[in-house]
Amino acid sequence: MTRPADDLTAHCAEALVRLRESTPLVQCLTNGVVTNFTANVLLALGATPAMVDIPQEAGPFAKAASGVLVNLGTPHAEQRTAMAEAAEAAAGSGTPWVLDPVAVGSLPVRTALARDLLAFAPSVVRGNASEIIAVAGNGSGGRGVDATDGVEAAASAATALARSTGGVVAVSGPVDLLTDGRRTVRVANGDVLLTRVTGGGCALGAVMAAFASLVAANGDRLAATAAAVTVYTVAAEVAAARAAGPGSFAAAFLDALADLDEAQLTERASVSWA
Amino acid sequence: MTRPADDLTAHCAEALVRLRESTPLVQCLTNGVVTNFTANVLLALGATPAMVDIPQEAGPFAKAASGVLVNLGTPHAEQRTAMAEAAEAAAGSGTPWVLDPVAVGSLPVRTALARDLLAFAPSVVRGNASEIIAVAGNGSGGRGVDATDGVEAAASAATALARSTGGVVAVSGPVDLLTDGRRTVRVANGDVLLTRVTGGGCALGAVMAAFASLVAANGDRLAATAAAVTVYTVAAEVAAARAAGPGSFAAAFLDALADLDEAQLTERASVSWA
Amino acid sequence: MTRPADDLTAHCAEALVRLRESTPLVQCLTNGVVTNFTANVLLALGATPAMVDIPQEAGPFAKAASGVLVNLGTPHAEQRTAMAEAAEAAAGSGTPWVLDPVAVGSLPVRTALARDLLAFAPSVVRGNASEIIAVAGNGSGGRGVDATDGVEAAASAATALARSTGGVVAVSGPVDLLTDGRRTVRVANGDVLLTRVTGGGCALGAVMAAFASLVAANGDRLAATAAAVTVYTVAAEVAAARAAGPGSFAAAFLDALADLDEAQLTERASVSWA
Repeated sequence: MTRPADDLTAHCAEALVRLRESTPLVQCLTNGVVTNFTANVLLALGATPAMVDIPQEAGPFAKAASGVLVNLGTPHAEQRTAMAEAAEAAAGSGTPWVLDPVAVGSLPVRTALARDLLAFAPSVVRGNASEIIAVAGNGSGGRGVDATDGVEAAASAATALARSTGGVVAVSGPVDLLTDGRRTVRVANGDVLLTRVTGGGCALGAVMAAFASLVAANGDRLAATAAAVTVYTVAAEVAAARAAGPGSFAAAFLDALADLDEAQLTERASVSWA
Repeated sequence: MTRPADDLTAHCAEALVRLRESTPLVQCLTNGVVTNFTANVLLALGATPAMVDIPQEAGPFAKAASGVLVNLGTPHAEQRTAMAEAAEAAAGSGTPWVLDPVAVGSLPVRTALARDLLAFAPSVVRGNASEIIAVAGNGSGGRGVDATDGVEAAASAATALARSTGGVVAVSGPVDLLTDGRRTVRVANGDVLLTRVTGGGCALGAVMAAFASLVAANGDRLAATAAAVTVYTVAAEVAAARAAGPGSFAAAFLDALADLDEAQLTERASVSWA
Repeated sequence: MTRPADDLTAHCAEALVRLRESTPLVQCLTNGVVTNFTANVLLALGATPAMVDIPQEAGPFAKAASGVLVNLGTPHAEQRTAMAEAAEAAAGSGTPWVLDPVAVGSLPVRTALARDLLAFAPSVVRGNASEIIAVAGNGSGGRGVDATDGVEAAASAATALARSTGGVVAVSGPVDLLTDGRRTVRVANGDVLLTRVTGGGCALGAVMAAFASLVAANGDRLAATAAAVTVYTVAAEVAAARAAGPGSFAAAFLDALADLDEAQLTERASVSWA
């Protein structure tokens, strides 16, 4: 990223162009409900998805991938083993990886798994407010995929978690809050229809892994994550304007992601340091 | 439900309003083919899906959920354990649960599983005619998800099964037949395009779990199940009128479910005691 | 097929009509990312999908099915056992079966599995150039689902593989190349949007299994496979003309498959012996 990221809008537009030029290979170990939508989101964006999530393959693949997503939505036993393998390999080889701790807090298996995975220092942790508070160690995680806590209530937990992992923490909500433990970005784009399509949040984790691959570990991963969120939520706005409901929205969202250009992104982006 | 359910059309409209007000949390242990569509159907309807289907999590979650769906379409070993755990927890804690015995009869693993699960007294058993006949103990279950028997041929099996479980049995077909072993409801709504989209039947099981959560175990679960079928199949009719084929139908169906109101439902509903 | 298959276009049109009349039952043991899209493609085409992929059920079902697809995209341990069971049962009972060796070459688990499955003589092996070269024994398989080799570079590997299995080998790309080891067919239909939808290639494997069921083992399986590819890629062209991007394309593709008739197919087909 040659431009200083203090102009976040310009940075987002530039990152989108770079992402499409580099067609990053994003490995997804994610829940069975959203694999299809997640792969289609990555393809629409210009990245290449690969759902390699079995033991003995997940680790070697993570070393070669551009980025990795680990999403705990339906963590079957074999996938849990593969997730640990992939996270360890990613951490060891410098591949950026994103942890999405779906419904962590009240559910015992995934909560223990999330704790173990944190040891591999995820480049980004992404969740709703309840999940971030639970991962940071002081909440119950809400009910399933619903957040029962507000974004701002999770701000201090997000900061503490980011300092602990050394990475970025992203809290999704009407206004998304992102932090690297020192700085904070807010993104005010998006549409409520994104919450009426399953995987609306989960697929964003894969997009974050794609954008994280554009910068080195010592680069500005917070700015890269802000680009992921802004691109994604601006596309949602464009799609919502064309949709008659959640079904037509999902298709329009993929169309909008594929079609999004720098001008459209710049015009609509509402992303700022704050 | 304050209105008497003898006016079934009015009851359906009222149940739809109540469902959206209560946003029930519906746990789905379902087949891998339809998880995405099922979650999107629940979201479009106004419910909250949660696909918690691993051992040690499925049971505790079922106690807290509003309703549970157990669908036997792709019953891998780990999911089978989770299904038994969820059904037992639901039965023990009064959470209504729906059993969809996909392709039971000729396939040995799921047929044995269905038999075991019946011991936990499902609030609703939902299937096509061949499946209901097979579960009731006197048929081969057809070929995969296709019914080779007609709905009316399954009427006596459905009645016997309902008396045995103490719950509702729903037989899907051009005219759906529902019974609690004493009374019978028929719903004549729907469109053949629902059979051209995978999960068209499976997602209805999740919708039944959502509507079942509106009434106590000693309430009128047959009327609640009739509301689920009527809402679902009326939305299918609305969508079919807008669709150019099965692909556009699937999106239009989600839009129609989200958009369906009391007036539209009342105008089109063809549901009756019979 | 009463017409000689030397007029391939006429053959394709005739095969489409026959397929819809016979509504073949296609068993799919496929990856979790594309099960939904694959089932919807089969339904749109006029076939019946059944995703029976667990041990003890996969084998018996393969004996009764019209055709079987084995796709190695996400080969979890239990599914691997079921795949071997299904391939053996298909081979033993004369059910045609298709092997799609997704990402075989660099990934160890699926590469070993593909080698084992080849012993059951797949009726069709379908892949991109890198995968076919890898299965034939002399390549690395590219990166995930992307082909890094061109179709024509895989021609000699495809011929050698077809001679080894005694079946058909299909190499996908801008122009698809199909061979039975003696003869070659090329299909120049399709649209780049098919590569922007996950499962665009995987679902074609299921369609090949459906068309293979129309001819006996000693019949012209190469012509049947050519019909599968031509029907599928012509429908993609029709859909692309109506789509605004990959999201609307996926829905339009299912609509086009359901709507495709002989005249439309004959007008657009670009299939030839070569």
